[in-house]
Amino acid sequence: MRFVQFLLNKAVTSLRLGILKNDVIIDCTQEGLSGSLVDLLNQENGFESLMSAASKATTSYPLADVKLLAPVSKPDKVLCVGMNYKEHCDELKIPRRIQPIIFSKFASTIIGPFDNIVRPTCSEALDWEVELVVVIGKKAKQVQLENAFDYVLGYMVGQDLTARDLVTPDFNGGQYLLGKTMDTFCPVGPCIVTKDEIPDPHNLKLKTWVNGVLKQDGTTSQMVHKIDKLIAHLSNYMILYPGDIIMTGTPSGVGFFRTPREALKAGDLVESEIENVGKLSNRVI
Amino acid sequence: MRFVQFLLNKAVTSLRLGILKNDVIIDCTQEGLSGSLVDLLNQENGFESLMSAASKATTSYPLADVKLLAPVSKPDKVLCVGMNYKEHCDELKIPRRIQPIIFSKFASTIIGPFDNIVRPTCSEALDWEVELVVVIGKKAKQVQLENAFDYVLGYMVGQDLTARDLVTPDFNGGQYLLGKTMDTFCPVGPCIVTKDEIPDPHNLKLKTWVNGVLKQDGTTSQMVHKIDKLIAHLSNYMILYPGDIIMTGTPSGVGFFRTPREALKAGDLVESEIENVGKLSNRVI
Repeated sequence: MRFVQFLLNKAVTSLRLGILKNDVIIDCTQEGLSGSLVDLLNQENGFESLMSAASKATTSYPLADVKLLAPVSKPDKVLCVGMNYKEHCDELKIPRRIQPIIFSKFASTIIGPFDNIVRPTCSEALDWEVELVVVIGKKAKQVQLENAFDYVLGYMVGQDLTARDLVTPDFNGGQYLLGKTMDTFCPVGPCIVTKDEIPDPHNLKLKTWVNGVLKQDGTTSQMVHKIDKLIAHLSNYMILYPGDIIMTGTPSGVGFFRTPREALKAGDLVESEIENVGKLSNRVI
Repeated sequence: MRFVQFLLNKAVTSLRLGILKNDVIIDCTQEGLSGSLVDLLNQENGFESLMSAASKATTSYPLADVKLLAPVSKPDKVLCVGMNYKEHCDELKIPRRIQPIIFSKFASTIIGPFDNIVRPTCSEALDWEVELVVVIGKKAKQVQLENAFDYVLGYMVGQDLTARDLVTPDFNGGQYLLGKTMDTFCPVGPCIVTKDEIPDPHNLKLKTWVNGVLKQDGTTSQMVHKIDKLIAHLSNYMILYPGDIIMTGTPSGVGFFRTPREALKAGDLVESEIENVGKLSNRVI
């Protein structure tokens, strides 16, 4: 199943929930559902209501007739994992860590799969980081490693956009927050692919192109701390709620560690793809 | 004006908005308002609707008949400022900084003014930090210093609870997030006092007592980076939305830097007071 949030192009409408199937969007909102997917997942039997609506839905639209939004909006948490790919650790010239590094973005940084990224004027080093995004499906607290996947709803493609010059030991006391949480710094989508469709999330190719040139070409098999470990680790410190997202880190090939250094500029097109999950296409303005 | 969110004690009810006046809660929800204060502030003319409801409200309750909740629930951002009081910098033996250090908590850490703080089992150094909390009243982007107070709705008392042993260079790669964002780590309230009632927010006494013993006894005049500077600084990196909160830092007297060291344990009562704003009383369990 591939969940989406969308707007109908032809009128000013509110957010609708749907299912993407063979380039057609099946409209679930018609069946009496309201609110966002995150709202629904946090209601009792919300997921069951969605599945029921999906099974009864009769209206559908061609993809071209809708505007896809971020499938997750206003979650409680956007959790990010730093330095979680072996080759990215190597390009940063740092050792692989025993424990993951966890930081965050604010939910308001989330944008849709085809929305524009606004280049901030206070950074000269806007950089790309394609990431596999895990969407939490049910409340998770002190989860054991062996049960961790029970709490996963599914996966999205994400970009953990980064002002690389503001994520340094000398800026903001070394805290990553400001360099990671500027407006529009979190494109996600195009859909949430439920976990049953992704038999092995640790064996997916993930890529970034900038203006058509391949920049990142990795595989999730390179993850240092795997998804089950991340969920167990995080849920030891805080309750994870339905709709919370975990951005699981990026492979090598970011702009800042290339020779010469590269940074995104206005007009650039960032395309981000994960095998079997989907593709984002975001223009920098 | 002192805004509160509350539940009626005598029945299972949903969140209500009210105004605290002379130990009586005036019920504004009766006048057709629904949702939280943050929801309302983010609607067009939401604040005006609240003021209109308040002026027409006829039902009131004695304080003893209601349960006060956090006045702000599910904001987009809980922003925190580290090392922002001169004497706290001195007790940490670090220099005062030219720029503030900004970190965050997740909104789900927020609890009410009389709710229990849950001591996490993964920390041996749960510590107190009383703070003046600024509540943003309208959307703020690249705000100039001289206009910064236009974006303030009012103030609350807050505790920036901290697992001091998890906020070190050796834990989580030096990122504060995990040690700051455990569940229940953000008691706020008891009301939002609108800015017109606080002529000088930089001249307020703020105190923490633990089990009746005074531990922190400071004044907001000791703030290194003042409220207008913080708003200008933050809004340079991200849009601030109505209901977003800024925890402005803590004075000296935290447990970890006492001789001998002190930490909160189950059963402790943490009371936090700011002159003219109010008092929190939270039991550690």
